[in-house]
Amino acid sequence: MLLAIPKEEIMERRNKFISRLHASDVECAILFNAIDIFYLTGFHFHPTERPMGLLIDPSGRSHMFVPALEHEHAELYAGADFVHSYPEYPGLRHPMEYLKDILIDYQFASKTIGFDSDGYGSPMGYRGPRISDLVTAKRFVSLYGWVEEARYVKSPNEIELIKESLRWSHLAHRLLQKYAKPGVDAIEIESRASHEASLIMLDALGNDYKPYGGYGQNVIAVFRGQVGPMSAIPHAVTQSITLKRGDTLVTGADAAVWGYHSELERTMFVQEVSKEQEHYFNLMVEAQNVAFRTIRAGIPASEVDKEVQRFLQESGVAHLTRHHTGHSLGLRNHEAPFFDTGDPTILQAGMIFSVEPGIYVKELGGFRHAETILVTENGMEMLTYYPRDLESMICH
Amino acid sequence: MLLAIPKEEIMERRNKFISRLHASDVECAILFNAIDIFYLTGFHFHPTERPMGLLIDPSGRSHMFVPALEHEHAELYAGADFVHSYPEYPGLRHPMEYLKDILIDYQFASKTIGFDSDGYGSPMGYRGPRISDLVTAKRFVSLYGWVEEARYVKSPNEIELIKESLRWSHLAHRLLQKYAKPGVDAIEIESRASHEASLIMLDALGNDYKPYGGYGQNVIAVFRGQVGPMSAIPHAVTQSITLKRGDTLVTGADAAVWGYHSELERTMFVQEVSKEQEHYFNLMVEAQNVAFRTIRAGIPASEVDKEVQRFLQESGVAHLTRHHTGHSLGLRNHEAPFFDTGDPTILQAGMIFSVEPGIYVKELGGFRHAETILVTENGMEMLTYYPRDLESMICH
Repeated sequence: MLLAIPKEEIMERRNKFISRLHASDVECAILFNAIDIFYLTGFHFHPTERPMGLLIDPSGRSHMFVPALEHEHAELYAGADFVHSYPEYPGLRHPMEYLKDILIDYQFASKTIGFDSDGYGSPMGYRGPRISDLVTAKRFVSLYGWVEEARYVKSPNEIELIKESLRWSHLAHRLLQKYAKPGVDAIEIESRASHEASLIMLDALGNDYKPYGGYGQNVIAVFRGQVGPMSAIPHAVTQSITLKRGDTLVTGADAAVWGYHSELERTMFVQEVSKEQEHYFNLMVEAQNVAFRTIRAGIPASEVDKEVQRFLQESGVAHLTRHHTGHSLGLRNHEAPFFDTGDPTILQAGMIFSVEPGIYVKELGGFRHAETILVTENGMEMLTYYPRDLESMICH
Repeated sequence: MLLAIPKEEIMERRNKFISRLHASDVECAILFNAIDIFYLTGFHFHPTERPMGLLIDPSGRSHMFVPALEHEHAELYAGADFVHSYPEYPGLRHPMEYLKDILIDYQFASKTIGFDSDGYGSPMGYRGPRISDLVTAKRFVSLYGWVEEARYVKSPNEIELIKESLRWSHLAHRLLQKYAKPGVDAIEIESRASHEASLIMLDALGNDYKPYGGYGQNVIAVFRGQVGPMSAIPHAVTQSITLKRGDTLVTGADAAVWGYHSELERTMFVQEVSKEQEHYFNLMVEAQNVAFRTIRAGIPASEVDKEVQRFLQESGVAHLTRHHTGHSLGLRNHEAPFFDTGDPTILQAGMIFSVEPGIYVKELGGFRHAETILVTENGMEMLTYYPRDLESMICH
């Protein structure tokens, strides 16, 4: 059972990234994006107002730059050649002054320097100078999106972790469906299903399991506010709403497994379903099927959305859609590329996507299933395995 | 019972912000920061790769700029003069092209335009142009931090919501302490305490309660990985660790109430406490007391940290500290200003801070209580009320 990406694979990722830097004549690099740093080092941390970065020096050595409170933590997990720390933010001396010292000591000055952003950023009260104000360079190069692109195609181990995530989100979703009854509050149902699934997952996986998914969020199954008429709002936020007979529900489930996520969403009905609900439900399921028949390596991502939009147009419900067909996912719940008419990215085997066309009908509700799928050479593999048919979607 | 900030207060915030714009000769503004937008509109949403913004036009009217999937949601909650939406990101036409149309239609061109960042940003696969590439201006002015500064001093209603948050985080923490026993896994204890407290809170507050705190996180009580020797790492992340007799634990609890947060942390011991643990525990509690005696409106925030650092220095444990004394909080768990030797911000009555000096001893563990306090004219009001003494911190 795989519960983490092996160290060797992480080292490979870093070497590949360094090779791409060198192939592009970028001599050294500074990255601030926390998820990208996790991808390249295996070091998971909570980003705050205190700057943290990964540096690749002109000799190809890696350096973690962290606040004192993360020093030992980075030494334990980051597998970097050096860990440097500064006392605190804002501090008597600004953290970026310490970074400047390191950049000078390790010969970044006058080199071609790449960065994912020109300085650290955090909405938690951070203020600070730009990298380009700290050090002189031959040239500054934006690496924005480079690591994200490296993350497009998932490795067999990454796919394994996403499958592990789905196992437990399915369990949580099953419990959510069991507990969804008239007269019960949506948050209560979410909390019960998420909690019980978390405990069972923990017992099943044992002590090697690391969520790396934020505090207190291991497995969740939620309505995110999409209950009854509010289900017509695709991203309604968590609310206390009492379920009623006949309500349309749009759900979501996810489990964090070593930072990896998956997506499972269902349109469900409380005890009974009307002809009108059935009508939109069937159109939505068929729109998903259109996507499934289209997906394969070698075509542009836009093609999938175009086929789905064409079907929805022909079915006379295009005016009831509010978003594209899907998005990639992995270390984040949403990642590029997108199943979107405007995304020309060519699909490759190993990409993971959600497939989730939606139909939203005011007062009646929202209609959206989300599957997690794996792009293959000749088509796709369905990774979610929860029932999709109307009969199975009625909560008794 | 107050469970939301009244509409009038939100309108007041927006008018105050517009007055500051005008006083600074900024004729119109574009904001992208999700929490700042919530502060100024009452509209809570999940930021994704799809750009969302709040515009203040030169006539002082407010406009929400959102993707189609948030249109109805924004109309329901934002209380803006206009809601504009674009089909999708990336889309056949980039969302920022739609934004450009609005900026031109509402006379932003050639004006003094303020923005919190020069373009939208999201790590979820977003790419797009800068504002300064979309439209010409007399002058662009950075408003970075303006709304954050408006959030420094909390209103009586905001303080009320933070107190409500503390009520339920105390309950969750009490349950966490009850369930903390040798042989039980940390995640299991966290999940059980968080779940039960969430259900009880929901029953007590009723259907008007809105967490606005992210999916599946209403009340949490956690160890965040700080169990036994790992407790010496201030931000160790959630891990499956089985509690053992004699372990040092560092906890944290929080409840989201209409987006407001609080902070309660405790150093606890499993069944027994050694002389060495007691030694560091007492120093940590005394360091907190030093802070409490120092805090009052009119002094710089740095003063509080300086007094604490002096005490820790005199006590011979300065080398065991890893961070400053505390930070402000409210709509985010961490906000400026900071109880930090480098923060000259003058304390004002109505500011809310955490007080949490920490001592970290390799192998033995971490020692940190966190209180949430309110700055008053003559001193401070302690908002947390959980016991702080050693005897109460032993988990039986």
